Amino acid sequence: MRAVIMHAPGDVRVEDVERPTIVEPTDAVIRVTAACICGSDLWPYRGAEPLSRPTRMGHEYIGVVDQVGAGVRDLQVGDFVVGSFVASDNTCEICRAGYQSRCVHQVMMGSVGTQADYARIPLADGTLVKVTGDPTAAQTRSLLAASDVLGTGWFAAVAAEAGPGKTVAVVGDGAVGLLGILAARRLGAERVIAMSRHANRQALARRFGATDVIEERGDPGVERIKELTNGYGAHSTIEAVGTQEAMLQAVHATRPGGHVGFVGVSHGVELDGLELFFSSVHLHGGPAPVRRFLPELVELIMTDQIDPGAVFDLELPIEDAAEGYRAMDERRATKVLLTL
Amino acid sequence: MRAVIMHAPGDVRVEDVERPTIVEPTDAVIRVTAACICGSDLWPYRGAEPLSRPTRMGHEYIGVVDQVGAGVRDLQVGDFVVGSFVASDNTCEICRAGYQSRCVHQVMMGSVGTQADYARIPLADGTLVKVTGDPTAAQTRSLLAASDVLGTGWFAAVAAEAGPGKTVAVVGDGAVGLLGILAARRLGAERVIAMSRHANRQALARRFGATDVIEERGDPGVERIKELTNGYGAHSTIEAVGTQEAMLQAVHATRPGGHVGFVGVSHGVELDGLELFFSSVHLHGGPAPVRRFLPELVELIMTDQIDPGAVFDLELPIEDAAEGYRAMDERRATKVLLTL
Repeated sequence: MRAVIMHAPGDVRVEDVERPTIVEPTDAVIRVTAACICGSDLWPYRGAEPLSRPTRMGHEYIGVVDQVGAGVRDLQVGDFVVGSFVASDNTCEICRAGYQSRCVHQVMMGSVGTQADYARIPLADGTLVKVTGDPTAAQTRSLLAASDVLGTGWFAAVAAEAGPGKTVAVVGDGAVGLLGILAARRLGAERVIAMSRHANRQALARRFGATDVIEERGDPGVERIKELTNGYGAHSTIEAVGTQEAMLQAVHATRPGGHVGFVGVSHGVELDGLELFFSSVHLHGGPAPVRRFLPELVELIMTDQIDPGAVFDLELPIEDAAEGYRAMDERRATKVLLTL
Repeated sequence: MRAVIMHAPGDVRVEDVERPTIVEPTDAVIRVTAACICGSDLWPYRGAEPLSRPTRMGHEYIGVVDQVGAGVRDLQVGDFVVGSFVASDNTCEICRAGYQSRCVHQVMMGSVGTQADYARIPLADGTLVKVTGDPTAAQTRSLLAASDVLGTGWFAAVAAEAGPGKTVAVVGDGAVGLLGILAARRLGAERVIAMSRHANRQALARRFGATDVIEERGDPGVERIKELTNGYGAHSTIEAVGTQEAMLQAVHATRPGGHVGFVGVSHGVELDGLELFFSSVHLHGGPAPVRRFLPELVELIMTDQIDPGAVFDLELPIEDAAEGYRAMDERRATKVLLTL
């Protein structure tokens, strides 16, 4: 079967690999119908994360169940499913508390590689959510978004305690930041301030519900947010980049007692304890427990209440994955969907 | 009047200074009836914080209102009062959200110096809470504790989301950590694990409700907490020290999705972003908004439901302040009360 493999920074190829099979009784194998390229895939692509050997890529996916292990109870061959980028048993104490991304039996789907015709999904009952009904093309794209970028933006908004009466600032105009805007509005935020200087992303930010867009970054960006909030700062800030500048911007833009939800994978971020102490913000983030939100997100998508699939602005057959990576790297595309 | 002045690390003197007067119409002047020495006073005493000139000391206090400015409405001369270590208007948006320690008009009482016969209290209506009734000697000590160490321990427990069904770990066996134990139990925590290797503090920890005491620190301490929590880690952890070791111990001892409440004033603490990301904990702390909790704490004390005054294990007249600092520094005393 076909699979995307990164050989070195900037070197992505589609190669023929062996088709996965059931290993554990709790596994399923799915025929992937669409996958995507993630902002986090760009870290190794740009050499910002080490790559010791050719590596299978991809951790976002939708597909059809092709095989199930003997221990799988809730899924059947032929089910159309969406799953999180972290496989989880969904039964341990950590999962039951809503942190499936840190399940005691967690398996990072990036180690599986879902940019491929088939993928083995560990802990299938705890990881996959069955979609009932017959999704339209737009719903299908949205379901794929739910697998990571929507679920991550949603978690960021929840971690930032976005809600009624709140002003939410969003640092980062990638797919996660944009869907953080959608989530914040859906959770009832009164005002959402997007930080973006790209016209097409600004337009998408407004489509997803941003009430204000500011182009300044760093300290001037923080000043603009304070101006827009009577000098207090945002109640809630979503950090969806993962750099030192973005994290400090998020902390500084948030009022004392406010909440920062950070979901950008931290690269080189160091937080000074004393600065954090006197900021008096709440800080919460990490790999998003997408599985917590998936049933609700699937429902919102299948009833056309949200359209997160609008983040995909480039759709390519998997053979053209290398072009997809280039387009994301050069910021010609916000989010790339790969068809199989 | 008499006031405690620190001239240099290790050099604390009681000197005669001018008695404060009303400056702003919102001020009150109180006759201090008791003050205390704070763990944070030890940072400059030990040379760990710079001291550029002789400095008035003290930010914890109880006393009797001696004068009020023309703009003070809720207090009268003769009222017995307790106040927070941060003066606050208690009306701005930050105060109304419960973060009076970060009031837009905040005044740190350490800049006033309450280890003295009299103290000017800015923003008196927003800062002081009147005590009705006639406190016993024990209640008086507890009211003084409410001014900072109890209020700070309480905030730490709230920030760590201590509550029913939760296991709370407490890093630090100073007055704040000990009162964090009291707060966690009062908030309904099922199990409270104190980290202490001092027999007298262990005894006080148990008196305040600790269910377990562990003597290990650092990684072995974290391992012990995991052993006591089925490998998951504590739901909630209070960090009441302010060093790198204590902060990392707190983060590592907490399960994914759990909460760290940190109230030790950070000295040399640096948090690695990636480590924090994958810890998946909630982190919240800072200077405690004691004023938020004071009315409730005064009520609990005046009805003998809590006895935080038990942390005072040395009581000295203000003339002997230097001996009080030495006793705290040498850990011969947990918390020193100065009488006036």
